[in-house]
Amino acid sequence: MTPQTILLDHGSGGLASRRLLEEHIYKKLGNKALYNGGDSALLSALPAGVQPAFTTDSYVVDPLFFPGGDIGKLAVHGTINDLAMAGAKPLALSLALILEEGLEMEMLSAVLDSIGAACREAGVQIVTGDTKVVPKGKGDKIFINTSGIGAAAENITLGQHVIEEGDAVLLSGTMGDHGITIMSKQAGIDLHGGLQSDTCALHRMAAGLLEELGGAVHCLRDPTRGGVATVINEVLPENGSLTVEESTLPIRPQVGAACELLGLDPLYLANEGKMLAIVEGGKAERALQIMRNFPEGAEAVLLGKVAREEKRRPARLILRTSAGGLRMAAPLQGMTLPRIC
Amino acid sequence: MTPQTILLDHGSGGLASRRLLEEHIYKKLGNKALYNGGDSALLSALPAGVQPAFTTDSYVVDPLFFPGGDIGKLAVHGTINDLAMAGAKPLALSLALILEEGLEMEMLSAVLDSIGAACREAGVQIVTGDTKVVPKGKGDKIFINTSGIGAAAENITLGQHVIEEGDAVLLSGTMGDHGITIMSKQAGIDLHGGLQSDTCALHRMAAGLLEELGGAVHCLRDPTRGGVATVINEVLPENGSLTVEESTLPIRPQVGAACELLGLDPLYLANEGKMLAIVEGGKAERALQIMRNFPEGAEAVLLGKVAREEKRRPARLILRTSAGGLRMAAPLQGMTLPRIC
Repeated sequence: MTPQTILLDHGSGGLASRRLLEEHIYKKLGNKALYNGGDSALLSALPAGVQPAFTTDSYVVDPLFFPGGDIGKLAVHGTINDLAMAGAKPLALSLALILEEGLEMEMLSAVLDSIGAACREAGVQIVTGDTKVVPKGKGDKIFINTSGIGAAAENITLGQHVIEEGDAVLLSGTMGDHGITIMSKQAGIDLHGGLQSDTCALHRMAAGLLEELGGAVHCLRDPTRGGVATVINEVLPENGSLTVEESTLPIRPQVGAACELLGLDPLYLANEGKMLAIVEGGKAERALQIMRNFPEGAEAVLLGKVAREEKRRPARLILRTSAGGLRMAAPLQGMTLPRIC
Repeated sequence: MTPQTILLDHGSGGLASRRLLEEHIYKKLGNKALYNGGDSALLSALPAGVQPAFTTDSYVVDPLFFPGGDIGKLAVHGTINDLAMAGAKPLALSLALILEEGLEMEMLSAVLDSIGAACREAGVQIVTGDTKVVPKGKGDKIFINTSGIGAAAENITLGQHVIEEGDAVLLSGTMGDHGITIMSKQAGIDLHGGLQSDTCALHRMAAGLLEELGGAVHCLRDPTRGGVATVINEVLPENGSLTVEESTLPIRPQVGAACELLGLDPLYLANEGKMLAIVEGGKAERALQIMRNFPEGAEAVLLGKVAREEKRRPARLILRTSAGGLRMAAPLQGMTLPRIC
């Protein structure tokens, strides 16, 4: 009989580990590569002119389940998005679980179901994995690492170094939905209005932009931890600045209200399904149309255009308030929310 | 001033995260790919005729430091070995840290030093990474995930399915050194005789075998969790059996003595620097010579040759004792040691 909770033995590498694999993991995530997998999965050779992209992320979100998603979905989307933001088509994911002894098998099962569903929806497979079990009190239910391999065109040149004066900065939708959703669950507050995490895979929208606009796309980033403000500060070139009309920032009313109540700034809240795209200024309108053609970019907006200041100074993000005042939005400093992803 | 312990803020994605990266991680592990890394690292395109291999492993070993190694060394070697056992040349590793709030910076620093040294020694780089921090009491100092990309020849056919009757089973050295080292540390016992973990990278020895013997190498596996007995049971074909003279099993006296005292069987103890190689019977002697030419294979032995039994039955590993008796060594069942890697 299968035990109802995770035992240390499930991490032993012996028969119990094998049963966990066969009865749960293979059943929910199985595919040829995963079954064949000895210690490594072998993938098909990449076509000529393609370079591999490689990324990793661990997920320690608390709670494991939240409106709009769960740790499994987050782990699949997050790693797909890291590949997509490098301009790569996601090819394969790995899945490494660190389970706490005593975890209910039902909870693990629900997370694995969610991982399977997110993979199918995104068209990407888990091809290799690992499971460790730590004694009760030495972990917290489930930690997940997903790493990913993608295929990027060899001539791709996304990155801060190609951002120029006049480039347009686009944001694919509302800010802070994930952050406020998790925070309210952590605080035990029930938000009205059905707010949920925005977790979703961005690879189709990223590919859509790159296919049509090619080298006119200068930088793609997903503003997760640290939020939109931190990422914009990171990617702006030296002496660069971006001035944004505060009123153009897309914020759901529930998120705005929660932020006001709690003294938080949505510019620093984590998103798990949003993309910042920096494109040649002249392509801003077309890029916006492309993004809006995808459900995950339906609410995309143009934040502004990159300016170059004459004085040598670090890059900066400036907000113009509705009253016409200016305020600086520096990178995140001081922890806002722990275990948001 | 840099704080002396890990704070939740180090996992926020903001300025504290960046300082941790710049002052510790980049300083110790830095290379071009890692610096350039936005969300993903871009690797050079693979040559024609090469397929990518992909693997992942998490490390939760307790204690973090032990004779012969530490969690960092283990994480580098383990993932390199998983690639090597698939016949792949390791190309790049990822490094994902889950740190417990309050971890001493000095301890993290020592682990990062060790990761850097192991990478340099093996000729492999960390090209992408992630850091998460969990609140005190929700983790245990440091958990590490390393994933890896390797390059395997497209025509490679390692695996259980090519193992034949008459194939030779070789083991690259002594059994259980890692398992007993960790277990004695966990129990607070000081073993005499300088026993230490065997953790080491096996990619050079694996490549040495494959380069000279090519398709005559049928299967490579590193007997980590579950030990030699579990892995042999896993890879033997149906109806296959392997009979091993117990006296040929390479076991250090300290390991033998500790096992006798504690009622453990070295066949089930974890190794972190050993290789099981299954090769065409006629190539056994040459394979042994090749392995012995590498320091990590200096004590390699021939365990026996694969037989096929007439009755349909699951594969089995049989030991012939010095008194001439036979005993079966089934796969590991029931946890032996938690947090061994």
